[in-house]
Parts: sequence; structure tokens; C-alpha cells
Amino acid sequence: MNDIIKQYVIEKEPYYRPVADEVELYEATYAVRMPMMLKGPTGCGKTRFVEHMAWKLNKPLITVACNEDMTASDLVGRFLLDASGTRWQDGPLAIAARHGAICYLDEVVEARQDTTVVIHPLTDARRVLPLEKKGELIQAHPDFQLVISYNPGYQSLMKDLKQSTKQRFGALDFNYPNHEIETEIVTHETGVSGEVASKLVSIAERARNLKGHGLDEGISTRMLIYAGSLIATGVNPHAACRVALVRPITDDPDMRDALDAAVTTFF
Amino acid sequence: MNDIIKQYVIEKEPYYRPVADEVELYEATYAVRMPMMLKGPTGCGKTRFVEHMAWKLNKPLITVACNEDMTASDLVGRFLLDASGTRWQDGPLAIAARHGAICYLDEVVEARQDTTVVIHPLTDARRVLPLEKKGELIQAHPDFQLVISYNPGYQSLMKDLKQSTKQRFGALDFNYPNHEIETEIVTHETGVSGEVASKLVSIAERARNLKGHGLDEGISTRMLIYAGSLIATGVNPHAACRVALVRPITDDPDMRDALDAAVTTFF
Amino acid sequence: MNDIIKQYVIEKEPYYRPVADEVELYEATYAVRMPMMLKGPTGCGKTRFVEHMAWKLNKPLITVACNEDMTASDLVGRFLLDASGTRWQDGPLAIAARHGAICYLDEVVEARQDTTVVIHPLTDARRVLPLEKKGELIQAHPDFQLVISYNPGYQSLMKDLKQSTKQRFGALDFNYPNHEIETEIVTHETGVSGEVASKLVSIAERARNLKGHGLDEGISTRMLIYAGSLIATGVNPHAACRVALVRPITDDPDMRDALDAAVTTFF
Amino acid sequence: MNDIIKQYVIEKEPYYRPVADEVELYEATYAVRMPMMLKGPTGCGKTRFVEHMAWKLNKPLITVACNEDMTASDLVGRFLLDASGTRWQDGPLAIAARHGAICYLDEVVEARQDTTVVIHPLTDARRVLPLEKKGELIQAHPDFQLVISYNPGYQSLMKDLKQSTKQRFGALDFNYPNHEIETEIVTHETGVSGEVASKLVSIAERARNLKGHGLDEGISTRMLIYAGSLIATGVNPHAACRVALVRPITDDPDMRDALDAAVTTFF
Amino acid sequence: MNDIIKQYVIEKEPYYRPVADEVELYEATYAVRMPMMLKGPTGCGKTRFVEHMAWKLNKPLITVACNEDMTASDLVGRFLLDASGTRWQDGPLAIAARHGAICYLDEVVEARQDTTVVIHPLTDARRVLPLEKKGELIQAHPDFQLVISYNPGYQSLMKDLKQSTKQRFGALDFNYPNHEIETEIVTHETGVSGEVASKLVSIAERARNLKGHGLDEGISTRMLIYAGSLIATGVNPHAACRVALVRPITDDPDMRDALDAAVTTFF
Amino acid sequence: MNDIIKQYVIEKEPYYRPVADEVELYEATYAVRMPMMLKGPTGCGKTRFVEHMAWKLNKPLITVACNEDMTASDLVGRFLLDASGTRWQDGPLAIAARHGAICYLDEVVEARQDTTVVIHPLTDARRVLPLEKKGELIQAHPDFQLVISYNPGYQSLMKDLKQSTKQRFGALDFNYPNHEIETEIVTHETGVSGEVASKLVSIAERARNLKGHGLDEGISTRMLIYAGSLIATGVNPHAACRVALVRPITDDPDMRDALDAAVTTFF
Repeated sequence: MNDIIKQYVIEKEPYYRPVADEVELYEATYAVRMPMMLKGPTGCGKTRFVEHMAWKLNKPLITVACNEDMTASDLVGRFLLDASGTRWQDGPLAIAARHGAICYLDEVVEARQDTTVVIHPLTDARRVLPLEKKGELIQAHPDFQLVISYNPGYQSLMKDLKQSTKQRFGALDFNYPNHEIETEIVTHETGVSGEVASKLVSIAERARNLKGHGLDEGISTRMLIYAGSLIATGVNPHAACRVALVRPITDDPDMRDALDAAVTTFF
Repeated sequence: MNDIIKQYVIEKEPYYRPVADEVELYEATYAVRMPMMLKGPTGCGKTRFVEHMAWKLNKPLITVACNEDMTASDLVGRFLLDASGTRWQDGPLAIAARHGAICYLDEVVEARQDTTVVIHPLTDARRVLPLEKKGELIQAHPDFQLVISYNPGYQSLMKDLKQSTKQRFGALDFNYPNHEIETEIVTHETGVSGEVASKLVSIAERARNLKGHGLDEGISTRMLIYAGSLIATGVNPHAACRVALVRPITDDPDMRDALDAAVTTFF
Repeated sequence: MNDIIKQYVIEKEPYYRPVADEVELYEATYAVRMPMMLKGPTGCGKTRFVEHMAWKLNKPLITVACNEDMTASDLVGRFLLDASGTRWQDGPLAIAARHGAICYLDEVVEARQDTTVVIHPLTDARRVLPLEKKGELIQAHPDFQLVISYNPGYQSLMKDLKQSTKQRFGALDFNYPNHEIETEIVTHETGVSGEVASKLVSIAERARNLKGHGLDEGISTRMLIYAGSLIATGVNPHAACRVALVRPITDDPDMRDALDAAVTTFF
Repeated sequence: MNDIIKQYVIEKEPYYRPVADEVELYEATYAVRMPMMLKGPTGCGKTRFVEHMAWKLNKPLITVACNEDMTASDLVGRFLLDASGTRWQDGPLAIAARHGAICYLDEVVEARQDTTVVIHPLTDARRVLPLEKKGELIQAHPDFQLVISYNPGYQSLMKDLKQSTKQRFGALDFNYPNHEIETEIVTHETGVSGEVASKLVSIAERARNLKGHGLDEGISTRMLIYAGSLIATGVNPHAACRVALVRPITDDPDMRDALDAAVTTFF
Repeated sequence: MNDIIKQYVIEKEPYYRPVADEVELYEATYAVRMPMMLKGPTGCGKTRFVEHMAWKLNKPLITVACNEDMTASDLVGRFLLDASGTRWQDGPLAIAARHGAICYLDEVVEARQDTTVVIHPLTDARRVLPLEKKGELIQAHPDFQLVISYNPGYQSLMKDLKQSTKQRFGALDFNYPNHEIETEIVTHETGVSGEVASKLVSIAERARNLKGHGLDEGISTRMLIYAGSLIATGVNPHAACRVALVRPITDDPDMRDALDAAVTTFF
Repeated sequence: MNDIIKQYVIEKEPYYRPVADEVELYEATYAVRMPMMLKGPTGCGKTRFVEHMAWKLNKPLITVACNEDMTASDLVGRFLLDASGTRWQDGPLAIAARHGAICYLDEVVEARQDTTVVIHPLTDARRVLPLEKKGELIQAHPDFQLVISYNPGYQSLMKDLKQSTKQRFGALDFNYPNHEIETEIVTHETGVSGEVASKLVSIAERARNLKGHGLDEGISTRMLIYAGSLIATGVNPHAACRVALVRPITDDPDMRDALDAAVTTFF
């Protein structure tokens, strides 16, 4: 394993609490190198899951946060000017394909079409990545696997994956964990007591019920960990919840009152 | 045959199961070097067919996945900066025309107009490719043939091939194969038993009937091969179908129930 | 005549079958170097006509397929980086103006406005081409003539030539030839018998009557030549017509039935 | 006068037939170096007028055909890469301002706003051109004058000169000349007899009456000169008018009939 | 004061006729280096005022005509390629901030948002200009002041300064001066008699009453100076007003008649 | 601490008058390096607050004014051409992450999506910044914190932070301070008497009541400081308020009358 790829190896086990058979299923899909799509809402643990699996499978992980201004070149690579002319620089997808990493394209639906089309030849029997600008055809390393994430709630008429892209992936669903598991996660990640963590989870559950009734998204597990961290440093739970849970997600005075009331109920 | 073009020669026969006279007709069109358009839905075998034909005709095959951000330069070539100034680099279409490969432009309708117009002079009696930026006129190699793919279901008012482009191509229709042939393909490609393969095909047929009634596209042959591969590694057929057939193509709870029910019916 | 321009000389007489006085009229317009506009539908022979005239007048012909992503620089030229700094490279229009070729801009309406405005100074009494980026004013060679093609059926509110551009050109109308002439052309170009060619023309005439009643464009002469070529290699006429005439121009089942019926009527 | 500017001097008197006091008025505006706007329809002689005046005043004339893809750099200049680094190249407006030419921006309304704003400092008391990229402020040469053309018929809500631009120019109106003068012009420019020229003018007058009733623009003086030139080479007047006057400006069968009838009336 | 900045010093007093306390108020705002916004219609003297104040305060003045294609780099600076690599070139705003000039951004509302946001750090207590591409933070010279102009009549829903920009500036209103003062200005600038100048002002006043009743803008002081200049060279006042006042601002026959009548009334 | 980062250290305590527990809460969020979002209207003190906190925590502060034309490269860095080829230059976000500064992205909602997505990996447990173009993964310095500002009043359907971005930040609300505190601030910053400052605050309070009833925004604290500064240099309070408070925020005659009346009431 060379220097470029070594920096993507995950040394320490990332904490991940399985909720069903997702770990075993993922291992099977990796065994046949099936391209995978992780579906689920913001902040429910998709990124952590793929980090955990990369660590478990002992493969380097290259993560790319997709966005609408990203071009195919940002994934595949480009020529850079050098003292002795131009020099090719592999992009993250080319590095992963060439050296055998898991390549994780986060929120791939945000990317422009050329980004999503460029991955097609890596997702069928050929498993190749054409570097058209360089005139090279990378035959993917046997360890390479492609994983993308996808938030179904974000789909719109303007921005969705093409069917011809979706059909190239197996899919796993993710959601917020149940009360007990989420409490366990918050406790583990912040150091607050199980009682405090359970209260935070209860507040989040109230907020998630408001999704679609004034809130665009509920409170995520990640936000609970932020609130717990503040409480663990000694901040008053009311202030901690205000800063970490309520103020970030809404500016509507009624919604803020409803959420503040939920905080007061539990603390 | 030089080094650039040799990497595009297909060494091993790609598995393709003919369904009618498409192999013979294609050979005739190649004999007169007629530009060809392969029409059909996602994942029904167009790419595999052209790979098979390239192997059978013993010609190199250069495949380009088209997309809306692709420019004419991505096909034709560009000047790159070098230690001694600029150096011309042929694009994939120019390589194919110059050295006599079959050039396959996949999903050409996704490309911008300049990409489709640039192929015009290669599709009439002239068979030339003007490299306007280089001031060179490539006379196509006698072995060169142009092939494009086209999914009629994707046509929209905004994005369709111009009539003046369509008229430059002969056309072959493709569709999903019939039950027996598709079962044979799944068995061949995954190693599952004929019985399991037949059940997978039956599930796909149910899903294809839902196309236009809640599903944008049916389940493709490629997806059946994914599901079969998981089953072959020991994954429970229910889980395998959920991951490979159902979750990727729909997030609608009713459609998911309908498809899950179809899985339960057969397994 | 230097090396750059010599590659654009047409050595062999391109086959063209005149239908009226278009050859003589064109010669008169060339005599006064009037810029010309060739109007007519796709595939009716405009490109072949200008090739024939260039051969007859013994002038080099530079053809440019216009498209909406083409810039003025693609026509006029640009600076390229060289070992010793930048070097100017004439574009096809500048080559034609400087060395005295006929410059044929095919489907000029597809081009962006800057492409069409850049030709203005070449179309009035001045006959100059300003290379603004180079600071040079090319006085057109006495042999230079500008020819553009234009398909009136493509006109739309969004995309049409400006009146101030149209007024700078004389115009000749083109259409599909009559039955006898078109039969003669198909026979000459494919080697099939007059009887087969006549049947192909009859099928095309039926299709042309459907234009505007379910077909965007009829079957062109070029498509008949494709079908004839397949038949000449031994392909069954039904299959040849399906591949070369019917499948390329429509995906509508009713239209396909109507056209297939026309094929069966004649073969 | 240096080499760059010498190529813009007009050696031979361009033929121009005055219709009113426009020559004297223009000389007065040049005497006070007032920026001028020439208003009028396509092909009525604005370009020829400014060429004539430049010749009469013995000043070099730099003409720029404006278009919507033209940038401020196309007018002002840019840095070019050279063997020894970058080198500044004056654009046509900078050349004119620095060396004292008349700069004629044809159809300036087609240009993007940055082109029109860049001329502002040259049109008020300062008479300067800031080369912002170079960090230089050109003080205009005493002989420099700015002239723009403008076709009021093209004005639209989307594309018009800003009032703050219009107010910086004096204006002269142009239109097609009256019958006698236009006949004189056609005779002078083509060599046909006065009788033939008069007939051509009569046809044009009919067409101009159809403007707004099916024709976007009438037949211009320039088109009459085209028709006359063909007749002078021996082409039949009917054919000459068809090619040079009727076919270029309309594809509407009724309008073509009306115009062909006008041709038949006079020839 | 170095060479770059010296060319922006105004040597000769620019003529400016104060109409109220604007000179004293501006001096107070300069004393506290308050960023200033000059509001008023086209051609009423905003540019001349800031030139006069720069001369009075003995500070260099850098004027930038803003436009919608101007980028932040056009203001701030950019890297240029040099024989020895890249070299930073300050833009006009950076030159002004570094060397202590008054920087006048004319019609700033025309610029894209990045241009207006780039000036924010120069308009609050920090008075800094971050050159992000260079990694440098310019602390503004004590003499530096930022001035922008703004024509309230041009405001539209699409294009207006953001409130967060407006709030960073003090503002002074400008308008056309009253009859006596404007007459004095026209006399001073053109050399015509007070009687002629007064007549020109009366014509302008009539036109200004038509603003919003068929005219987009009235006749500005600058236009009166144009007309006066022509009269001073001996041009007939009717012709001079036609060329300099009426033809530039309207193509509507009724408005032209109304304005021509006003000219006839006074001359 | 190296030279690049030292220029961002704030030497002198920036004046900030706390209004509640915001200083303590911010210190707690910095202790756990929670990414923070400061919410509130224009000119209410968000920028000053973060400057004060950076000084108090003794950390360098890198401020970036976001805008819609800013690209991810403007934040992350880019390759520059050098005498010896290309050289990587860290952008402000990369400098902050590498060297341990607080990075403050002002008005982040103005930026394009790629700018907001690029900060995601810095806001979760990974705390990394991928320099994809350079192939480097910056592990954030332990001192690094990310802070963004957000004006809820500017939210629109077209331009809002994505929920997946908002959820990555804790949030603090800001607003204009109460009468006594704002008076104290104006006195401190301008040197006017408490009586004059109190009058200015009263005028601002009137204007803030008009927000949404003819005014888009009220008068900010920053504007009061401008007015106070003019008064402190001896300008008449009426004129100072006109220039600094009324003219900048409205061109509507009725609103100007209402605000002028408020000025007259208090002075």
C-alpha cells in the first residue's frame, strides 16, 4: 500500500451501534463488490456506518462530499502544470479505483450529471474508469467498491438520480435508531449519564413528530451529541438544548416555543 | 495496431445470448460501415451486445459514457501543455476514427448539441472528423464504425436527438429477453440454479408490469444478476431481493409493499 | 496553394444530379462572389451540392458543422501556447478567407450569435475578416466565397437568423428530388436495381406525406441510400428497411406500423 | 502614424450619396469630438457613411461588429502569454483611443453591458480609457472619436441601450434613400441601366410596405445591389430577383407569392 | 506618492458649481472617512462632484465604471503570468486602499454581488481588504475613502443593492440644478451666451416634465453641454438640438414632435 | 505561530458590550469546538462579537465575506503557476484549519452550495478538510473552530442553508441591544454625549418599528455610530442624521418624511 492511499486507512475502530442485519448484509455486498447506495435522513449515521465497515473490512476509505459545482474532473483527475510540463493528478475516485479503496460519494444527488455518469463504467461488469483526458482506462483494483449516499426526502423534480444510475446499486435503508439504542449512542459519545441521554432522545422524538408540520427535518442523533457535549462541560441543560437543538433548526417563533416547551418538560 | 488502441481490444468473449437476428443484422451494417443506433431501456444488454460484436468482429471498442457536461473537446481532443509547448491529445472519437475502432457513445442524448453535431461528418459519405482546433482533417480508418445508444423512454421536449442526427443512423431495437432466455442469462452470470433464476425473472416481470403505474422503470436484467450474486454467496433470498431489487428503485411505501409481496410469493 | 489549404481540395467529382438551374445560378453567384444561403430539409443534398460546385469551380472547400457551443474563436482562430510563447492558429473561416477557399457553414442557425456576427464583414463590400485578438485585418482572397445552409423547418422563436444576417446572402431552395431523379440517385449510389430503388423511393414518399401528421421529418435520400446499401449486401429488404428507414425516425408504435405496412406494400 | 494604425486608413473614396445635411452635421460633431450614434434599419448605408466620413476627414477607421458574446476584453485588450512572460495587446478600442482613429461599434446593442459601460469614460469630459487589467489610464488621442450604430427596430425589453449610455451620444437618423437617389446608387454600384435599377427599387418599395404585415424587414439597398450584380453578369432578372431579393427574406409561401408577383410586375 | 498612484492625481480644478451644502458635508464625511453613496439621475454631475472634491482634498481619485460582468478580481487584483512565474497585480480598489486614494465605484448596482460584498470589510471599523487569492490582508491607508454612485430610478426587483450594503454608507442626494445655476454651467462649459444657454435649459426642463409620460429619462446637463458645443461651432440651433438633445433619447414619433416643438418655441 | 497566521491575531481588545450570557455560552461551545452559527439582522454586532471572542480566547481570526460568486477553491485553495511549475496556495479555510484559527464565514447563505458543502467534513467527528485538487487530507488543528453568520430575514425559497448544513452547527441569536446598552455603545464608539447618543437610539427605534411597513431593514447600531461620528466633528445633527441615517436606507418620499420628522422630534 503506497503513501497516497495509506492516509485513508482508518486506524481506530469508529464507534457504530448496529440496529439490524446491516453489517452482515454489507459484508455480503462487499464480497461480490456490489456498488451500494445508503439511503436515509441527515445525521442518522450513514457516514459513520461506512467508516465502521471500512475499518472492519480493513480497507482504505475515500469520502467525497458531493455538490452541484463539482465536475467530473474533481472526481477523476486533471492535468496540472509542472516545471517540466503537465502532470496528471488522479482525483479521489481514480485513486480509489487504482489502489483498491472504498469510495464513498456523500449526497451524490447534489452533483451534476457528469459526476454521476462518470461512475457508470465502474458499476457494471467492466469495472473500469476511463480517464478520457489522459487516454487511460483504469481496470478497478479487486478491493475497490463504490458506495453512495442518498436522502430520499431531498428528491425533487429537478434533482433526482436517473433510473439508469439507481439500477446500478444495491441499497440499504437507514433511519434514526430506537430510543434505547439512541440513548446508548448519546451516552457513549458524550459521557453524560443514561438518564440525561434518554431525556435528550425524548426531546428529539418530539421534534421528529413535527417533521412536515412546521419543521423540514427533525433533530438528528448528531445534534443530540452536540447538546450532550455541552451539558458534559457544565452548561445548563436548558441553554445547551437551546444552542444545540432548537436555535439551529428553526426561526419560527411558534416552533421555537413548542421545542422549548419540550425541553422544559424533560429537564 | 499501436499501444493506444491495443488496450481497447476485447480479449475474452463477452457472454451474450442473442434473442433474434440482431447479430447477423449488425454484421451487415458493419460490412457497409453504417452508423448504428441501439435503442432500448436501461440495463437490457445494449452495452454487452456491442462488446460482444466488437469481440466477434475482432475490432477494438472505445466506449464513452455521454453526459450533459461533456464538450466536443472531450470527444475530439485538445492541446495539452508540455515541456516543449503544447501537444495535441486525441480524444476517444479521434482515436477510434484514426486507428479503426468501433466507437460506442452510450446515452448520447445526454450530451450537449456540440457533441452530437461533431459526429455528423463521420456519418455521411465523407467519413471525416475535422479537428478544427488542430487544423487537421482525419479521414476515418476503413475499420471505423460509430455506434450510439438511445433510450426512447427518456425522450423529453427539452432533450432529444435532432432529426438531422437520427437520420444519419440505422437502428436496432432492444428489450428485456423472454422468460427462458433471461433465466438462462441469470443462471450463467451468477451460478444460482435455474429454479432460483426463474423465480428472480418472475419477480422482475411483475415489476415491469408496474412501469408507468408507480414505477419509472422496471427491474433490469442487471439487477437480477446482482440479486443472484448475493444469493450465491449465501444471503437469504428475501434479503438479497430487498437489497438488490426493491430498495434501489423505489422509496414509495406502497410500491415497496407490492414488490416485497412479489418476492414472498416466489421465495 | 500551400499545404494547409491543399487538403481541402476535392480530387474526385462528387456525384450530384441537378434538378433545375441550380448549378448555373450558383456559378453566377460565385462569379460575383455573392455570399450564398442553401435552404432545405435534412438530407436532401445541400452538402453534396456544395461539394460538387467546389469541385466544378476547382476551389478548396472548408466545411464547418455549426453547433450552439461553437464560439467565434472556433471559426476565426486563437492563440496557442508554444515552446517559444504563443502562436496564432487560423480557424477554418480565416484559412478560407486568407487562402481563397469556399467556406461552408452547415446549419449556421445552430451557432451562437457571435459566430453569425463575425461573418458580417466578409459579406459586404469590404470583404474583410478582423482577427481582433491578433490585431490583424484579413482582406479576403479573390477566390473566397461564403456559403451557409439553413433548414427553414427548424426556425423557432428562440433560434433564427437575424434579418441583418439573412439580408447579406443570396438564397437557393432545395428539396427532395422527384421520383425519377431520386431513383436514379439511389441506383447510382448503392448499386441496387432501378426497380428496388424505385420501391425505396415510393416508401420514402409515403413517409414524407406523414410529415406533420405524426412524423417530424420524412425519410431522406440519404436514408434510402443506407437501405439500398444493406440490400446490396444481401440483407432481406424488409429487415433493411426496418433498420435503415423505420426504426431510426420514430418510436411511436402506430407510426411504425404505418411505415412497416408501406414497406410490405412495395416489397 | 505607426504600422498598427496604418492598416485602418481608407485609401480610396468609398462611394456615398448624401441625402440631406448629414455630412456637414457629422463634420461639426467631429470638430467637437462628440460621440455619435447612427440610427436606422439594416442595410441602409450607416456603415458606408462612416467609411466615407473617415475617408473625408482622413482619419483611420476601426470597425467592430458587436455581438452578445463579446467581452470588454475584446474591446479593451488582454494579456497574451509570450516567450518572456505576458505581453499586453491593445484591443480595437484601445488602439483607436491611443492612436487617434474613429472607432465604429456596429450594432452595439447586441453587446453585453460590460462592453457598453467600458466606453463611458471615453464619452464624457475625461476622454479616458482605463485599462484596469494593465493598471494604465489611456488619455484619448485628440483625433479619436467614438461612433456607434443602433437599429431602433430591434429594441426589446430585454435588450436596449441604457439611458445613461444613450445620453452620452449625439444622434443622426438614417433610412432608405428616396426612389431617385436609390436608383442612382444601384446604377453606380452594379453597372445596370437606370431603367433596370429603377425597377429593382420599385420592387424594394413594395416589399418595404409589407414590413410588419408578414415581413420582419423590407428589402435593403444592399440586396438591390446584389440583384443588380447578378443581372449585370447576364442572369435572367426573374432568377436574379428570386435569388437575391425574395428567397433570403421569407419562407412563407404567401409572402413569396406576393414578392414574386411584384418582380413579375416590373420585369 | 509612487508612480502608480500619481497618474490618478487631478492636476487642474474640475469645474463644479455647488448647489447647497454638499461640499461642506462631503468634507465632514471625509474627515471621519465615512464611506459615501452619491444618489441621483444620469448626467446630473455626480462624477464631476467627486472629481472636484478629490481635487479640493488633494487626494488621488480612482474611478471604476461598474458593470454586470465585472468580477471581484477586476477590483481586487489577480495573478499575472510573468517570465519568472506569477506576479500579483493590484486591482483599482487595492491600489486605492494601499496607497490612499479616493475610490469611486460608478453605478455600483450594475456589478455582481461579489463586487459589492468585497467592499464590506473596507466599510466597517476594520477598514481592511483581504486579498484572499494572495493571502494578504491590506490595512487601508489613512487617506483611503470609498465612494459609490447609485441611480434610484434604476432600482428593480432583480437588481438593487442589498440592505446590508446600503447601511454601510452615508448618502448625499443629487439632482439637476435650478435654472440659473444650470444656465451658468452651460455657459461656462460651452462658451455660448447666457441667453442661448438659458433657452437650452428651458428645453431640458420641458423634457424633464415628460419623464414617466413617454420618456424614460429627461435631458441631462451633459446633453445641454453637447448642444451648446455644436452651436458654438456654428451649427444651426435647430439642428444642434435635434442631434444632441432629441434624437438620442427617443425614437417615438410623438415624443420627437413634442421635443422638436419645444426647440422651435425657444429658438 | 508562523507568519501567515500571525497577521490574523487581534492585538487590541475589540469593544463589545455583552447583552446576556452569550460570552459564556460561546466559551463553552469553543471548549468542545462545536461549529457555531450566529443569527441576527444586519449591523447588530455579530462580526464584532466574534472578533471580541477571538481576542478573549487569544486565537487568530480569519474572516471571509461570502458571496454568490465565491467558489469552493476560494475557501480551500488552488494551484498557482510559479517559475518552477505550480505551487499550492491554501485558501482562508485551509489556513485556519491547518494553523488553528477561528474561521468566520460571514453571510454564508450568499455562497454557492459547493462552498457550504465543503465545510461539512470540518463540522462532524472527523474534523478534516479534504484538499481534493491537491490529494491532501488536512486534519484540523486542535484550536480550529468554524463560525458562520446567518440573517434569518434574508431567507428565501431560492437561497437558504440546507437542513443538512444547519444541523451541523450550534446557534446563538443576536439582535439590536436595548436602549441603555445601545446608548452606551454609541457614546463609547463616537465620543458624543450620552444625551445625544440616547436621542440617536430613539430615532433608530422609531425606524425599526417601520420595518415591514415601508422599510426593508431598520437603522442599525453601525449607522448610529456613523451619525454620532459626524456630530462629533461638528456637523449639525439634522444634517448628520440625514446623511448617515435617512438617505442611505430609503428613496421613498413618504418614508423620508417620516424619518426626517423623527429626527426633528429628538433634535
